[in-house]
Amino acid sequence: MIVIGERINGNFDVVAEGIKARDKKAIYLVAEKQLATGSNILDINVGTRVAKAERLEVMKWLVETTREVTNVPLAIDSPNYEVVRAGVEAASKKGRAIINSTTGAVEPLEKFMTLAHEFKAGIVCLAIDEKGVAGTVDGKVEIGMRAVAVAMEKGVAVEDIYLDPIILPVNCNQTAPRIVLEAIQQFKMISDPAPHIVIGLSNLSQGASERSLINRSFFVMAIAMGLDSCIMDSQDTDLMHAMIAAEMLLDKSIYSDSFIKAYLQSHSTSASASA
Amino acid sequence: MIVIGERINGNFDVVAEGIKARDKKAIYLVAEKQLATGSNILDINVGTRVAKAERLEVMKWLVETTREVTNVPLAIDSPNYEVVRAGVEAASKKGRAIINSTTGAVEPLEKFMTLAHEFKAGIVCLAIDEKGVAGTVDGKVEIGMRAVAVAMEKGVAVEDIYLDPIILPVNCNQTAPRIVLEAIQQFKMISDPAPHIVIGLSNLSQGASERSLINRSFFVMAIAMGLDSCIMDSQDTDLMHAMIAAEMLLDKSIYSDSFIKAYLQSHSTSASASA
Repeated sequence: MIVIGERINGNFDVVAEGIKARDKKAIYLVAEKQLATGSNILDINVGTRVAKAERLEVMKWLVETTREVTNVPLAIDSPNYEVVRAGVEAASKKGRAIINSTTGAVEPLEKFMTLAHEFKAGIVCLAIDEKGVAGTVDGKVEIGMRAVAVAMEKGVAVEDIYLDPIILPVNCNQTAPRIVLEAIQQFKMISDPAPHIVIGLSNLSQGASERSLINRSFFVMAIAMGLDSCIMDSQDTDLMHAMIAAEMLLDKSIYSDSFIKAYLQSHSTSASASA
Repeated sequence: MIVIGERINGNFDVVAEGIKARDKKAIYLVAEKQLATGSNILDINVGTRVAKAERLEVMKWLVETTREVTNVPLAIDSPNYEVVRAGVEAASKKGRAIINSTTGAVEPLEKFMTLAHEFKAGIVCLAIDEKGVAGTVDGKVEIGMRAVAVAMEKGVAVEDIYLDPIILPVNCNQTAPRIVLEAIQQFKMISDPAPHIVIGLSNLSQGASERSLINRSFFVMAIAMGLDSCIMDSQDTDLMHAMIAAEMLLDKSIYSDSFIKAYLQSHSTSASASA
């Protein structure tokens, strides 16, 4: 599993305060905790509390600050092209970037794929187009196929594409999770090799009770369907253990009596050591 | 989910002692706890500590004792035809029985299906035949198809068939769980309506560490694939919560902020009340 740590996000208080005070140590700490708990990639999101006019500068600051402690790929999380470009450029100076994200509408898809090619960056493509979030399996697959086609045109390798079927809060739409599970199975068949498939897991339980239980139950089902990447909270120990057990059961890692410990030891990173 | 409580089994100390002393209250208590935690059916297994010559009589005693507190279906768990027949006969006097189990070898399949028809009982059919446990998806599906065909011949309704793909301990065979997941998906397509699909979940983690985590992670994946019945420990709260969340996410029950409590209230039974 490619674990994309979700915590460097200006919508969390600790990051919001870090941004406000330009307190690098606060950001280091958030990065460090995620890497130590098994995140392989860190998502960087300015959040919505920062004024629009300042978001580009804050994205650069967050990326450069994170880059002071780690070389892991950074997922530059913004819907705004200029903000994404600034983040990708900063992240790519010392490691890789992932564009998070483009929709599957033709114009942004072409623009962001061109950017991905320019920086040899990964790119997340959402199952959204001009008509909004695709609500059916077929609609999601159609957008996924378009993303892969445009990627080929623009010279982006399929291994750099992360298709996101879009998870909605289950308390708003209870039929959506099953559709997402079916879409994941279909996405795996779009090309050979298959693109990565990613979800923003926490969104599923937004506003719901039993958030951790809901997240990990869905996560395990999605892993069974072929999910291989996830934007998530690696500090949720129960969630990580469920993931490790699911992957072991799918024969992706070797069983031993200490399979959880063995996984975490081989997948966690010390932030300072990798800087 | 059809939850088949696994605890009335002579291999557990409390039941072994209950059998030895013919202590009905000990058995009532095991039944009661399972029904209160969401078991819809109770498995009755004499276990291997009872001498072979006494197993038929002990099965009758266990069934009759359990029947004194509940009318839920009882799964008569033995490989021996005479023991099964005695249990099914006793259970059917006041409620339903499920034969647990027949293999898919031609001779036992015909014999046990005839018994199922005679008592209008359900029947579990294992993915085992003359050649042993079917190790491939195709092998398991072939046996499943044979079971459904013989059932039709003998007048057993497809709704009364429970196909069991056979779970082996993951610490012995790590490729088997994935094959079982694929088999579950295929089993759903054998007929319309589909037969039930059941597993004996606890066997997966036999001898392994992190038993509860392994069981519930696999269970949730199996539910995503179409599993609809399980021989399991309903007293494992984490396991039950994972199941309830998975089924809610598949839109089989309605989300509310108290969806766990709502499920348990509507699915648990008071043993004495149903007697």
